[in-house]
Amino acid sequence: MPNAASKTAITPRRDEDFPEWYQQVVRAAELAEPSDVRGCMVIRPWGYGIWENMQRQLDVMFRATGHRNAYFPLFIPLSYFAKEAEHVEGFAKECAVVTHSRLEVDVDGKMKPASALSEPLVVRPTSETIIGASYAKWVQSYRDLPILINQWANVVRWEMRPRLFLRTTEFLWQEGHTVHETEAEARAETKLILDLYERFVRDHLAIPVFIGEKSESERFPGAVQTLSIEAMVQDRKAIQAGTSHFLGQNFSRASGIQFQNREGKEEFGWTTSWGVSARLVGTVVMMHGDDDGVVLPPRIAPTHIAILPITPKEETRATVLETCDKLARELRAVRYADVPIEADVDRRDLGGGTKNWEWIKKGVPLRVEIGPRDLEKNSVEVSRRDQAVKAKESMSMREFVRRAPEILDSIQQNLYEHARKFRDENTRMLDSKKEFYDFFTPKNSEKPEIHGGFGLAHWNGSREVEDQIKNDLKVTIRCIPPAAAGEPGRCIFTGEPSPRRVIWAKAY
Amino acid sequence: MPNAASKTAITPRRDEDFPEWYQQVVRAAELAEPSDVRGCMVIRPWGYGIWENMQRQLDVMFRATGHRNAYFPLFIPLSYFAKEAEHVEGFAKECAVVTHSRLEVDVDGKMKPASALSEPLVVRPTSETIIGASYAKWVQSYRDLPILINQWANVVRWEMRPRLFLRTTEFLWQEGHTVHETEAEARAETKLILDLYERFVRDHLAIPVFIGEKSESERFPGAVQTLSIEAMVQDRKAIQAGTSHFLGQNFSRASGIQFQNREGKEEFGWTTSWGVSARLVGTVVMMHGDDDGVVLPPRIAPTHIAILPITPKEETRATVLETCDKLARELRAVRYADVPIEADVDRRDLGGGTKNWEWIKKGVPLRVEIGPRDLEKNSVEVSRRDQAVKAKESMSMREFVRRAPEILDSIQQNLYEHARKFRDENTRMLDSKKEFYDFFTPKNSEKPEIHGGFGLAHWNGSREVEDQIKNDLKVTIRCIPPAAAGEPGRCIFTGEPSPRRVIWAKAY
Repeated sequence: MPNAASKTAITPRRDEDFPEWYQQVVRAAELAEPSDVRGCMVIRPWGYGIWENMQRQLDVMFRATGHRNAYFPLFIPLSYFAKEAEHVEGFAKECAVVTHSRLEVDVDGKMKPASALSEPLVVRPTSETIIGASYAKWVQSYRDLPILINQWANVVRWEMRPRLFLRTTEFLWQEGHTVHETEAEARAETKLILDLYERFVRDHLAIPVFIGEKSESERFPGAVQTLSIEAMVQDRKAIQAGTSHFLGQNFSRASGIQFQNREGKEEFGWTTSWGVSARLVGTVVMMHGDDDGVVLPPRIAPTHIAILPITPKEETRATVLETCDKLARELRAVRYADVPIEADVDRRDLGGGTKNWEWIKKGVPLRVEIGPRDLEKNSVEVSRRDQAVKAKESMSMREFVRRAPEILDSIQQNLYEHARKFRDENTRMLDSKKEFYDFFTPKNSEKPEIHGGFGLAHWNGSREVEDQIKNDLKVTIRCIPPAAAGEPGRCIFTGEPSPRRVIWAKAY
Repeated sequence: MPNAASKTAITPRRDEDFPEWYQQVVRAAELAEPSDVRGCMVIRPWGYGIWENMQRQLDVMFRATGHRNAYFPLFIPLSYFAKEAEHVEGFAKECAVVTHSRLEVDVDGKMKPASALSEPLVVRPTSETIIGASYAKWVQSYRDLPILINQWANVVRWEMRPRLFLRTTEFLWQEGHTVHETEAEARAETKLILDLYERFVRDHLAIPVFIGEKSESERFPGAVQTLSIEAMVQDRKAIQAGTSHFLGQNFSRASGIQFQNREGKEEFGWTTSWGVSARLVGTVVMMHGDDDGVVLPPRIAPTHIAILPITPKEETRATVLETCDKLARELRAVRYADVPIEADVDRRDLGGGTKNWEWIKKGVPLRVEIGPRDLEKNSVEVSRRDQAVKAKESMSMREFVRRAPEILDSIQQNLYEHARKFRDENTRMLDSKKEFYDFFTPKNSEKPEIHGGFGLAHWNGSREVEDQIKNDLKVTIRCIPPAAAGEPGRCIFTGEPSPRRVIWAKAY
C-alpha cells in the first residue's frame, strides 16, 4: 500500500479551502512563487512554458486577423498619463512612480536615490496614452487607417493583496491598440477580438465562458464600452479572463490622433484596446485542477508526454533508457494541434513513485511508464491525467505513437466538456430577491468558499442596486449578455423594467 | 528618367555621415523611432518582427542546449541590488528608481507622486541579484544543479546619449542565468554560450565576429571573466554584439546560493550570465545596409518576398491581384530555413514606384512584380535586395516557387561573404606605436567617420596603456582572442612582453 501522504502533497483539498489549495497547487507544480518584492511573483519554467504556448497560439490568431506586434516604452511621462481624466483617476491609486535616475552613496554610507527627474515617470499600468502619442504622429489621413497593433509586455499596478497569477503588482499580458476610420469599424474590432478571445480560451484552454458587456461601474477607465469573457472556476466564482474596450474618440482626443477623412475634414480616430494576461494561467489551474494538482489542457502543456523509465535492475537499465529515448524521438516526429509532440524522458535519479507524482502535480497530460517487462512485450503503460491516478492502459509502442494525438485530443475535449457541465449546473435563473440572496449566501452545511455560482437575474440598470448587492453579498454584475441572448422582464430588486437578464457572481 | 529624389530617401549617404545615415535608415524603414520619453524608443512592427525572428531562432538554440525560459520581477529592492559591491557601483549611475506607489492630486490641482515606499526599488538594469534570490531558495543539493534558465525581458539603464537600438534607456534582451556544481562546468557554460552566439550571428544574421575575453576595464561589474563577440560594421567601428560572463562565486556568495556537494559539504554555486539584446537589430542595419536602406538577411526578415501587383488598367486589375494571391499561397506552402516562406501581396492603392521603394528601404530580400504582360507569359520579374535596384530576372512562376528557398539562401550567403571580406580587409596587424596611431587617425582625404578598423597589436596587459590609448584615440581593446589564436611578442607601446595580440578598435 502506498503511503497516503505520498499520494498527494496538496493540502488542503479543494473542498476544504479552495484559495489555499490554489496557492499550494501553483507552488507544488512549480508554476510560480511569490518573490520578496512586494506583490511580484517569479514565474518558473513550467508556468512560463504554459504562458509561452498561449502567446504563440494567440499570436497566430492575431496575425490571421491582420494585427502585428510592436513595442512601446515602459515609462509614461506623468503629463501624458494625466491627459485622459477618467483614465488617470482610475489608475492613480496603483501606480509605481520613477522619480530618480541614479543611486548615490549617502553621507551615512548607504545607497540612496539621486538625480531627481524633472518630470516623474509612471511605470505603465496599461499603454493607451503612451501608444496614443505615437499613433498621433503616424496617422495623417484615412489612408493610414486602420492601425492594428499588439504589444506583449509587462505592466505594473500596485497590488496590496496579491494572488499568484490572478493579481500581482507586475504582470505579463498582451495589449492590442487599434485606430479606425469609423465608429462602426472600431466597434466591429472590439467584437472581433472578444470573439477571438472566446474561441481561444474554448479551443486552447478548454474554458467555456460567458461573453457580454461590463456595467458602467466595471468599465475600463476612459472606455465607452468594455466587453469581457467570464469564466466560472471550481469554487463557482467568476474570473474575468479577457477584456476588449471600445474607446470611442476619448483617447484620440486626449492624444491628438487626428486624420483627414474622405471628405477632406479633420476627424479624431476611433480607437479600441484589448488584453489578456498571464492571469489565464491561474484561471486554467482553478478551472481544471484536482486534489492531486494541476491538470493541463494538452494544447498548452509545455510537455505533452512524460516518459518514465522504470529501472529496478542495473542490467536492464541501459536498454530501458534506450527504448524511452527511441519512443521520445518517434513521438516528436508526430504532430498534435500544429506542433510536434513534446515528449520528455525523465532520467533523473529519483524513485519512480516520486517522479510519477511530480508529473501528476504538474498536470502533464500523459505519463508513460516503460520497465523491463514492457521491453519484452514491446508495450507501454499509459496514464491519462484526466483519469484516476492509478488507471493505466497497456498498448503496443507502435499503437501508442499512432494514437497519441487522438488521445491528447480526447483529454482536451473531456476537460472542456467537464468544465462546461460544471458551469451549466451552477448557473441559475434567479427570479426573486430572496432566491438571489439565498443563492449567494453559504448555508451552514456548506464550506464557506463553495457555494453560489452564476446567477442570471433581471436588473433595472441602476448603479444603486449594484452597490447594494456588492455591499451585502460581494456579488457583482460580471457582464450583460448580448441583446439577442435574452428577453425583457422586471428587475428582481426594484420591480422596474429590465431589457434582459444580466450575469451576477462573486469574482476574483 | 525617374526623379533622382524618388530613388532614395536616405540622405546622407553612408560615406557622407554614417551615424546620421543610420538614424535615417532606421526611420525610413519604419524599424523604430525615438519616443518622447527620454532615451526610450518605439519599435515599430517591421523592426519588432526582426527581433521576434531572432528570439524564435535563439530560443531553439537555447532549448537544444538544455535551457528553459522563466520570468523574474522587474523591480529589485535596493538592498538586494547593493549586495555585490562592484555590481552596484557599476550600475549606480544609470538606475531608474521607483520611490512611490501612487499618484495624488496636490493642493495646486496637479498630479504628484504619493505613498513613498519604505525601500526604493531599482528597475532592473540586469537581473543577477533578483534571480539569485530565487536560486538561493531552489538550490539545496548538488542534485538540484545545474540550473539553466533564460529570461526575455526589458531592462533599464539610464542613457544620456541614446541611439536607436544601439543604446537606449529601456531595451529588450535575453539574459541567461545558470548555476553549476563546479568551476569547470560554469566556465564550460560560459564558452558554450559564446560559441552559440557566434554561430547564431553568423548563420542567422550573416555577421562574422571575432570572439575573445574582455580586458578587466571592460568586464561586467562583478564578473570574474567576460567573453564577447565583436562585429565590425561599415564605418569600421566595433559593436559588442553579445556577452557571456563567468561570475565565479561572487554572486552566489552575495545571494547565498549554497548547496551540499557530493562530499556532504556546503559550497557556493558557480554562476554564469549572458545576453544579447535588440541592439542586434541595429547591428544588422549597420552591417548590411546600403545607400538605399536596410538590407535584411533572409533568415530574419519578417517578410521574405514582397509581391507587387502592377495594375495600370482597370480591366486586368482583378486577374493580376488573383495571380498575386495565388503566387503568395504557393510560396507560403514552401519552407525556407525551417519556416514557411512569408510572402506579402502589397495591395495598397499607391503608385508602383512608391511601393517598390518602400520595400527596398525596408530591406525585404525579394521583390516580385506581376503585371498584365506577365500574366500572358505566366512569368514574374524578380529583384534581389543584394543586387542593383534595377536588376530584374524574369522567370516562370513555377520556377520561381521552386527556386525561392535557394535564391533566399544565396542572398544570405552573399551578405555573409561580403561582410567577412569587408572585415578582413579592414583588420590589420599593427606592429609599432606609429602604425597604430596612424591607423586610427583619420587622414585629411578621408571622411572623419570612415577610417581605421580592427587593429591586432601586442599589449603588455596594463590598464595604463589602455587608458592612454582611449584618451588619445577613443580606441579600446574589443577583446583578447583565445590563447590558441596568437603567438607571444612585445607590447608595441612599452616593449614589454605580450602573450598575444589583442583586438583594438573604436566602438559603439
